[in-house]
Amino acid sequence: MKVLVIGTGAVGGFYGALLAKQGIHVSVVARSDYDHVRRHGIQIQSQMMGGYDFRPAQVLRSAAELAEKPDYVLLCIKVVEGADRVALLKDAVGPDTSIVLICNGIDIEGEIARAFPNNELISGMAFICVTRTAPGKIWHQAYGRLALGNYPKGVSAKTKALCGAYEQAGIHCVASADIITARWQKCVWNAPFNPLSVLSGGLATSDILVTQEPFVRAIMEEVCVIARASGHSLPDDIVEVNIASTRKMPPYTTSMLLDFEAGRPTETEAILGNAVRAGRALGVAIPHLESVYALMKLRELRRSQG
Amino acid sequence: MKVLVIGTGAVGGFYGALLAKQGIHVSVVARSDYDHVRRHGIQIQSQMMGGYDFRPAQVLRSAAELAEKPDYVLLCIKVVEGADRVALLKDAVGPDTSIVLICNGIDIEGEIARAFPNNELISGMAFICVTRTAPGKIWHQAYGRLALGNYPKGVSAKTKALCGAYEQAGIHCVASADIITARWQKCVWNAPFNPLSVLSGGLATSDILVTQEPFVRAIMEEVCVIARASGHSLPDDIVEVNIASTRKMPPYTTSMLLDFEAGRPTETEAILGNAVRAGRALGVAIPHLESVYALMKLRELRRSQG
Repeated sequence: MKVLVIGTGAVGGFYGALLAKQGIHVSVVARSDYDHVRRHGIQIQSQMMGGYDFRPAQVLRSAAELAEKPDYVLLCIKVVEGADRVALLKDAVGPDTSIVLICNGIDIEGEIARAFPNNELISGMAFICVTRTAPGKIWHQAYGRLALGNYPKGVSAKTKALCGAYEQAGIHCVASADIITARWQKCVWNAPFNPLSVLSGGLATSDILVTQEPFVRAIMEEVCVIARASGHSLPDDIVEVNIASTRKMPPYTTSMLLDFEAGRPTETEAILGNAVRAGRALGVAIPHLESVYALMKLRELRRSQG
Repeated sequence: MKVLVIGTGAVGGFYGALLAKQGIHVSVVARSDYDHVRRHGIQIQSQMMGGYDFRPAQVLRSAAELAEKPDYVLLCIKVVEGADRVALLKDAVGPDTSIVLICNGIDIEGEIARAFPNNELISGMAFICVTRTAPGKIWHQAYGRLALGNYPKGVSAKTKALCGAYEQAGIHCVASADIITARWQKCVWNAPFNPLSVLSGGLATSDILVTQEPFVRAIMEEVCVIARASGHSLPDDIVEVNIASTRKMPPYTTSMLLDFEAGRPTETEAILGNAVRAGRALGVAIPHLESVYALMKLRELRRSQG
């Protein structure tokens, strides 16, 4: 099994390292961290794995340098404005390459499916707290579960094989036959907590939930309404389950807040924008989501003014 | 005509000065600016009036020091948490004193009407850009129109007399027989632009309108729905008129943004909270307003954490 990981941030570094640790041949495409990773590899510090020194088989500036096309290419970059995912994948994909997306968001597969219509497309999400603290330095704080499924549905042999490799590495990896529904399910949590942490100016999830639970629930319910209208009904108790599990979490700083405060592009469009566009196209009422989306756009406009 | 102005901020200083300039006997209760105002009075710098040195008949620390109850007491303080308006008025109000409130907000009269059931209550709003730049220093930038009306409705002889005094001072002062409707009318503009300027992190009204006009309109429409449900229908074209006039305004920094950024209490409850509570009591759907209100509460919670 040959794997190419595009992106040596927190997610790419961590999930690449897990495979390499199993003896799998893993190369990486590094962008801003190329020089450091080429020289020093990637150091993972993990509560689960301890310290691990990930030395990729090859460290490339771009997939064009590849001698041989991989069995899997893992695209581990955030879906944000300015990231040209098709261009990043172009030279990595041969006739038998499976494309694996590990990212947040709704409706993030269509663009890739259209660009590579003859390749298997595996859509994935990571449930993890992991941070790139410096070039080539990754701090795995908690969790790590993966969900992988073929787009738009099903579970292929290659998807099962990848799940198996992660299971052997000690990560729980769910092979999901309905990954689109799984994305909506994750959006139930992301849609309120990510933007509200930014718009509040930096509140932890616990403070948001304690003081504005009805508002959080209203946003979650609207995500469920869109999912249902699009033929991906979520479990009846999903809002309750998300509220209860958030209540049990320690105060948590969302990834959108970290991105926003660091001046990086955010996943606003992938998480909120695409959900809102889906709701509009389906003609369902989503006024709370629309409000939060509009405010995130205003907040980001203001940030762009410096 | 004897007048007592409580509050020597921008509004109290400016509207007190206008009466004093007409030769009316105007005393003031100064709170934080007492020492300065006692010694130096209040200097107004106004495009309309030029420079004017307002020397109040008396400068008091509290109304308890008054020898004689005034004909009018103008309460010129923002309706914010921690401001005990009844306590400030208590010693100022004799049997024949008319209480005049000049402030923003919805449903801000009830508390005063209940505390002083036998006094005439005049409810007023100022349409003005005016700033207190330092203790006793007031900068009048633009506009200045007043609307005054008896609460809950009508226009008394004393209200007309006060309007007349302001008209003589060169200010347009509308005697409104339906001041509650006039408050809803002002809320149509305040409800979107004040909180959106804060939640965006400081956008000017022009940027908000250009990029999120449908969202602004949705909030405005909900204010109209509440007003109508409470028996105070607004003109059919009020949203259009507000959008058009905002489009013509120069980029404008709202008072709520100035208060928020200076660390002062904001009028969130008076403007948004009271509108939302009115909507809830009437059972009308106001999801955009509820969203904006919830987010302002989160933003202020975060600010309070320092």
